[in-house]
Amino acid sequence: MESKQKSRRDIIKLGAGLTLGSAAVACQKMPSFSINSKLDTIEILHARRSVRKFKPTPVPEEHLTRILGAARMAPTAGNQQPWKFLVIRDKNKINELKAACIKNSMDWYKENQNPTEEQVKERHSGVTEYYNGRFSAPVFVVVLTDNESQNAGYNHHDGPLAAGYLLIAARSFGYGTVYYTDSIPDAVTKQVLNIPDRYTRVCITPIGVPEQWPETPDKKPLEEIVAYGVIS
Amino acid sequence: MESKQKSRRDIIKLGAGLTLGSAAVACQKMPSFSINSKLDTIEILHARRSVRKFKPTPVPEEHLTRILGAARMAPTAGNQQPWKFLVIRDKNKINELKAACIKNSMDWYKENQNPTEEQVKERHSGVTEYYNGRFSAPVFVVVLTDNESQNAGYNHHDGPLAAGYLLIAARSFGYGTVYYTDSIPDAVTKQVLNIPDRYTRVCITPIGVPEQWPETPDKKPLEEIVAYGVIS
Repeated sequence: MESKQKSRRDIIKLGAGLTLGSAAVACQKMPSFSINSKLDTIEILHARRSVRKFKPTPVPEEHLTRILGAARMAPTAGNQQPWKFLVIRDKNKINELKAACIKNSMDWYKENQNPTEEQVKERHSGVTEYYNGRFSAPVFVVVLTDNESQNAGYNHHDGPLAAGYLLIAARSFGYGTVYYTDSIPDAVTKQVLNIPDRYTRVCITPIGVPEQWPETPDKKPLEEIVAYGVIS
Repeated sequence: MESKQKSRRDIIKLGAGLTLGSAAVACQKMPSFSINSKLDTIEILHARRSVRKFKPTPVPEEHLTRILGAARMAPTAGNQQPWKFLVIRDKNKINELKAACIKNSMDWYKENQNPTEEQVKERHSGVTEYYNGRFSAPVFVVVLTDNESQNAGYNHHDGPLAAGYLLIAARSFGYGTVYYTDSIPDAVTKQVLNIPDRYTRVCITPIGVPEQWPETPDKKPLEEIVAYGVIS
């Protein structure tokens, strides 16, 4: 591949030397450039990881605004934009959500596993450690779709698409995220955060500086997931 | 915002001067750099448009490989990677899909609208023009999920996430795409392309150089879709 012979510096020069052309026209309404983009888009897509433990470093409002501003550019059926992004920064609220997750998990365990007192104690310690990591980020965003949106039958596409955009945008600012579904249960989220029934939760994600970036999980070779012309 | 005072050249210099740090570690398994990245990731997310008419310019296999290689890095439940990307480059097959879409649309019209012969003729002309545009790209990718995947209950998340990644990756190479669902009906796609029942179609997208980049559709202001702490 041509690009393999080019250094990072050459690539950047190449980028700088080219005119933006029609893309610039399409970008008229965009905000200003990202300030932390050390990686190009293909690299960002590869570098996003599911991060489950964070440093307490704050996420400036400016970054969050630009991340959500990009998330809302996801494909959406007939431009309906059925999304709501519920931002949780209040540490008390985050801890309340954590406590409810721990309780939910322990209740399930006690009801279903008939454990001894000792087992309950051990389990509680493990579950608490698990959720201490998961709730260590300074910000959480609940991605929701509105069941009363214009083309609500397409919300099951639009929801994950915007969530994916959000994770990618956050990664481009150097933040880790993770697309939580059952680890932070839907019902618990809705109850603690008083989310009205008209909204469907797509996922909940933390945004923060990772304690460390996890390694890339093994991925299937392309030959295994790409079919040319015919699929069997 | 700090970045507003910086020119594009400054931003590129800034990018070049910084070390990759932990992100580089996370990127070890990545392919080489993208050769067409004139825009950073936030810009790419804003610049992706739904494109429905294309130039005949070919899409090199190298680009397609890198686009699909990035698509497969989407979040996926328990790293199950339930995706299949069915690539259609054969012009005859693309035309067969087009003809089937036209027939499907005309059949529906005749069965449901009780039209005159003149109306049928006019409709056929309109529908043909519509699909001539939609099938003008040199490549189509059908994004599928495998109903027999490891965590198939999460495929409704994983499917749109990978499709979104694909569209973003394609945009970073300067290609237009569009997340088609009902414009190119599921049943028609599956029949013409002989897609086995074990796969669920997420969407089908063309990949190609746009005839022109559409303008950005009006987007809701962030205040309307972001809620802080409380949602009503």
